[in-house]
Amino acid sequence: MREPARSMQEPLERSDVPRWLVETDVAVVGLGCAGACAAVEAAEAGAETLVLEAAPMGGGTSAMSGGLIYLGGGTPVQQQCGFSDTPEEMARFLSAACGPGVDEAKVQLYCESSVDHFHWLVEHGVPFEARFHPEPNREPPDDSGLVFSGGEDSWPFTEIAIPAPRGHHPKFPDAAGGFLMQRLIAAVDATPARLRTDAAVDRLVVDDGEVVGLEVLLDGEGHYVRARKGVVLTAGGFMFNEGMVAENCPAALRCNVPLGTRWDDGRAIRMAQGAGAAVMGMDHLEVGIPLTPPRRVVRGIIVNTRGERFINEDAYSGRLGQEFLLRQGGKVYFVHDDDTFEVNIAGYKPRWVADSAADLEADIGLPTGSLQQTLDRYNEHAVRGDDPEFHKAAQWVTPLQPPYGVVDLGVDNSYYATFTLGGLATSTEGAVLDTSGRAIPGLFAAGRSTAGIAAAGYVSGISLGDSTFFGRRAGRCAATHATG
Amino acid sequence: MREPARSMQEPLERSDVPRWLVETDVAVVGLGCAGACAAVEAAEAGAETLVLEAAPMGGGTSAMSGGLIYLGGGTPVQQQCGFSDTPEEMARFLSAACGPGVDEAKVQLYCESSVDHFHWLVEHGVPFEARFHPEPNREPPDDSGLVFSGGEDSWPFTEIAIPAPRGHHPKFPDAAGGFLMQRLIAAVDATPARLRTDAAVDRLVVDDGEVVGLEVLLDGEGHYVRARKGVVLTAGGFMFNEGMVAENCPAALRCNVPLGTRWDDGRAIRMAQGAGAAVMGMDHLEVGIPLTPPRRVVRGIIVNTRGERFINEDAYSGRLGQEFLLRQGGKVYFVHDDDTFEVNIAGYKPRWVADSAADLEADIGLPTGSLQQTLDRYNEHAVRGDDPEFHKAAQWVTPLQPPYGVVDLGVDNSYYATFTLGGLATSTEGAVLDTSGRAIPGLFAAGRSTAGIAAAGYVSGISLGDSTFFGRRAGRCAATHATG
Repeated sequence: MREPARSMQEPLERSDVPRWLVETDVAVVGLGCAGACAAVEAAEAGAETLVLEAAPMGGGTSAMSGGLIYLGGGTPVQQQCGFSDTPEEMARFLSAACGPGVDEAKVQLYCESSVDHFHWLVEHGVPFEARFHPEPNREPPDDSGLVFSGGEDSWPFTEIAIPAPRGHHPKFPDAAGGFLMQRLIAAVDATPARLRTDAAVDRLVVDDGEVVGLEVLLDGEGHYVRARKGVVLTAGGFMFNEGMVAENCPAALRCNVPLGTRWDDGRAIRMAQGAGAAVMGMDHLEVGIPLTPPRRVVRGIIVNTRGERFINEDAYSGRLGQEFLLRQGGKVYFVHDDDTFEVNIAGYKPRWVADSAADLEADIGLPTGSLQQTLDRYNEHAVRGDDPEFHKAAQWVTPLQPPYGVVDLGVDNSYYATFTLGGLATSTEGAVLDTSGRAIPGLFAAGRSTAGIAAAGYVSGISLGDSTFFGRRAGRCAATHATG
Repeated sequence: MREPARSMQEPLERSDVPRWLVETDVAVVGLGCAGACAAVEAAEAGAETLVLEAAPMGGGTSAMSGGLIYLGGGTPVQQQCGFSDTPEEMARFLSAACGPGVDEAKVQLYCESSVDHFHWLVEHGVPFEARFHPEPNREPPDDSGLVFSGGEDSWPFTEIAIPAPRGHHPKFPDAAGGFLMQRLIAAVDATPARLRTDAAVDRLVVDDGEVVGLEVLLDGEGHYVRARKGVVLTAGGFMFNEGMVAENCPAALRCNVPLGTRWDDGRAIRMAQGAGAAVMGMDHLEVGIPLTPPRRVVRGIIVNTRGERFINEDAYSGRLGQEFLLRQGGKVYFVHDDDTFEVNIAGYKPRWVADSAADLEADIGLPTGSLQQTLDRYNEHAVRGDDPEFHKAAQWVTPLQPPYGVVDLGVDNSYYATFTLGGLATSTEGAVLDTSGRAIPGLFAAGRSTAGIAAAGYVSGISLGDSTFFGRRAGRCAATHATG
């Protein structure tokens, strides 16, 4: 955990609040999927609940997403599609794929509770179709309900946990984030919780170390909301705060597609820091690249500026993206031959074509002989469908023969989509922790305002997954919080 | 135009209104893209504007869409991507592709004004990246701004108009409908227009034939809103009103993916019919099928239950879908060989595989000799890259050789996504017309509550296109409407 950064927003003392505009038990800040789930739980627990959304429309970044939710351990959808899974296998996989640096307690709880969480989502209006879609790592183009979404069936995870698909896709064709949020906001609506949009929260109000309310801007004027039981911060990450990105995870500034809304300005993190909160994983990024579909393109090989392979090409695309950006300097090349070439979903085509590896080395500027050596070594084993160095699955391993084509997958020439993963340190109950690991009374958080399941690694569906799950817990914990 | 259907909702007479809860100049019913644009224009024209949204969250079906907007005639994005286009070519194409039965006056105006509309969208917060994406008929997986989205480059349209891509995709990766609606609702928010969610409008209020207000349900109770200048109905289509679908376009009931929200229950249409409005095109449907990407799959051939081809396989996928469902009884087969087979975006795989056409005829139940004859005829010309019968483009025409595979593209076995295209008859200004073609004073409409540009045909992007464009006009016209 780090000490609070300088960009923190100091809270207001209760004694400086002139008057409360409104009083409530629980105030939820932000109406993405975490906020919606927090509000439902708080209201269902009997707490008077007020949701404040900065934008004129609820939904946030969740509503612009593909809608995948990472669930497993034997959900009905998994079972009906013929896949076995257990919480233990799911936890083994997530600890490895989302690490290093995962919060093991959160992973354990998340996996143990995943089937229950699936049922909760269904009961609250989010339907899933029990149909498996074979193309991994992104939402299906139809309303199929299940995909591999994190490289479960690729090395090294095949040796760590029994592979099972866990990307659950709500029953809506293609990107289902808008549909998901319409359903979750309708679930909020079915409770007595109140909702106010155009209500940007700027500051917390504290009283002797306890969070007792907040300041909200309404029509350009600051007003004060008393939250008797607690404030739940579910206001997104900091992808759209350039200063925070530059300070914490500057590689994100090289990516051409920042994901989020302008309200992902880190305000929840900065407000909580002002109240003493600790942050974690602020340097962690999701980095999405559209290499597949079709997955068959991974029959090619990926090399770095030294002309060397560095990863199994059939790894989860977000794992490739992180590797490309964070450890290969954003300069990578995708080498294929006529048999293995496919135009991929992003329309990527070879930038260089040549009859020999030597010509490509010269054209691209790779060390002389490097690509030839890499190809020789790859082909030597590929004739047997083997990849002893990087463990690409046998079905994608075939020798490559000239002429060759090379797609430029560099960060300056192809599409890198990114958002921040770091944020507030929280307990498994959703309480915000201070730098000593103690819960800050009255302050709760979930979603991308917090450091969730994903630490240094990522899998598709884990953001909506941990945001909905820990959003629920934060809402319920706030609702049952005994006032100080 | 049809006479009003029996499902109409009778209006209330003004004399029966006990009291107005609130008065406004313009009341906009529904906050999808049409309603957002209507509200912006009405408010910018100086009218006091109130938007009533039935759902707890604005956005509607627009927010769950891919975000493509059909624009052309030489937009900056088209120009910067190196495509020439004119309003005349755009109009020739749309009249053919969206017909038969298009409203020529609407098509002309839409095409003449398209570059202006592009600039209006940009000025109101919807950005576009000037990058062309080669895979047609759906939103790009990245944030590219331009695609072919209606079969412009396939027969018969290649002989009707000079092909140009016109599907404009907002600068957001993949499905951009949520992003689009966040931007458009922020644009509403920047005006003085007021917005109320959870406000389902049930009935119009009339006074001597003029629409002067409406009844809205708030917290389960009916209240009355006076609209001094007019009511704009932008409350979606009727896909989720099973009775209306059964009555008007029953084939939609065979499709497994109805697109829309539960508020697409035809209420705008039924309320306006009660005030004397005419409807048009109520039997028209969009029918989306995920045959491509990758587009290369269209090297196969598609046959019906007689084992005969009936259309060029490289036609726009929505054109194929309409043909499959409405004119081939929903029973169609996609025949390929090893060279032409690709797993498509929906993961479709051959249901039947055989070494001869005769075996396939027996397996599938096609007339003996029919598929063999079709293949012989196709291959005879395909060796020269020619398709004299159905005019598939030469690049997709290659002879097919055994063994063959056949994918079942039938409505009972693959994915058909559909929504209704018919609705209220409106003028180019957005006034709702009665069965004599006269404007109903005080009543305006746009979006899928109306019959728009698409009549019997469809192109991707035309719904968001005509809804935003005619939504603007309806809002402005209502704002400047002289009260009766």
